[in-house]
Amino acid sequence: MTKGHITLVGGGPGAWDLLTIRGLRALEAADVILADHLGPAAELEDFLDLTGKEVVDVAKLPYARQVAQERINEMLVSYAREGKQVVRLKGGDPYVFGRGFEELQACAAAGLECSVIPGVTSAVSVPAAANVPVTQRGVTHAFTVVSGHLPPEHPKSLVDWSALAQVGGTIVVVMGVRNVRAIVEKLLEASLSPDTPAAVIQEGETDAQRVFFATAATLPDVMENNDVTSPAVYVFGEVAGLAHTG
Amino acid sequence: MTKGHITLVGGGPGAWDLLTIRGLRALEAADVILADHLGPAAELEDFLDLTGKEVVDVAKLPYARQVAQERINEMLVSYAREGKQVVRLKGGDPYVFGRGFEELQACAAAGLECSVIPGVTSAVSVPAAANVPVTQRGVTHAFTVVSGHLPPEHPKSLVDWSALAQVGGTIVVVMGVRNVRAIVEKLLEASLSPDTPAAVIQEGETDAQRVFFATAATLPDVMENNDVTSPAVYVFGEVAGLAHTG
Repeated sequence: MTKGHITLVGGGPGAWDLLTIRGLRALEAADVILADHLGPAAELEDFLDLTGKEVVDVAKLPYARQVAQERINEMLVSYAREGKQVVRLKGGDPYVFGRGFEELQACAAAGLECSVIPGVTSAVSVPAAANVPVTQRGVTHAFTVVSGHLPPEHPKSLVDWSALAQVGGTIVVVMGVRNVRAIVEKLLEASLSPDTPAAVIQEGETDAQRVFFATAATLPDVMENNDVTSPAVYVFGEVAGLAHTG
Repeated sequence: MTKGHITLVGGGPGAWDLLTIRGLRALEAADVILADHLGPAAELEDFLDLTGKEVVDVAKLPYARQVAQERINEMLVSYAREGKQVVRLKGGDPYVFGRGFEELQACAAAGLECSVIPGVTSAVSVPAAANVPVTQRGVTHAFTVVSGHLPPEHPKSLVDWSALAQVGGTIVVVMGVRNVRAIVEKLLEASLSPDTPAAVIQEGETDAQRVFFATAATLPDVMENNDVTSPAVYVFGEVAGLAHTG
């Protein structure tokens, strides 16, 4: 029996041609592909000959999120133990809020080889698709990518949003649509200027992309009035005000 | 005459197969490629038929850095005005400390069309190559990518390093080899624990990759004792301590 192997592939922000060449080759060599609804999974058959390949849509696993992740880990191990070449296709980059390292650890714990192929992260490329560069010389020397899945005062939050407001770099919030009001409130309290340029990009790098520009203070209303829904990325910083000069 | 067009291509961290498919196609369609020493430029002829293409190594322009950038901008405009398909191949992602937006602005100012193709950023993929994930569930909800080209007390520094030390996320420093002692000193003063795991990766995602693990307090000595030189990325955060569990 051939030796099974697991490869975590960063699929990029959406459009399949933002996949890396190394990632495409791993998909071509795969016996089994575990994909979810992020990244280029919906287009798989447009760019890949799926003959002889098993494609599992793990977004359809009938479990709550953490249980689903455990089930994914088990499936990666189980397929690899059958001697299969297994690809876990993920949106963006596997290590940017992608639970990729958990999957790597599960494979390592099972004594299996696991490779990781980085991808184009949505945290940078989605703002770019709206003409917002996360850095610009003379404007910002840093950018922070932060998950907004928990509001700032949540007991499980691991982010000091007050400190973040003071760093002086671009702030890119992912998974933060629901908590945008609480996040903005906290940042403004902590001295972020209400006039700081802001931008929100929904479904960036896809045909459905929508972009709205605002200020830090007006962003929650702009998002609400335009029914911005997930997935969306929003950005605070002078760079969000450069978009119209591009 | 055909209409000239400029495309900024993010070439990824080094190995050419971490280029995106969209980026490769732009290179294939190019009449002129302006490349520097970062990213996959050294391998161009290994993966691309260069017949009929002009390749300009802009790293060899005999100017100081800012003048060289102005000259690159002029060249982009000048070639495009000749009706050529021009690709500016950059390391990593064009908007992560890549001066990509400056080039876009120069093209826009000249009334020329310019597209941007995002790339795999070294800020995430180089730590990943050392088994350091910039995020991990339950460990960190944020990461900051910061340029270390200026020391913290430099009058032109745009980063509040004290605030950064308190954010609670992973800190990824690029272009910071020379200033590592000043940066560590400032972070520790501002309450970053000296025991915070740290890692440095020199020439990540290339055959010459070297990785050293340390703590925040010991990182400057570890780098000095091992003669770590640019390009290198270093990381502070609990995620740098996960590498051995992968």
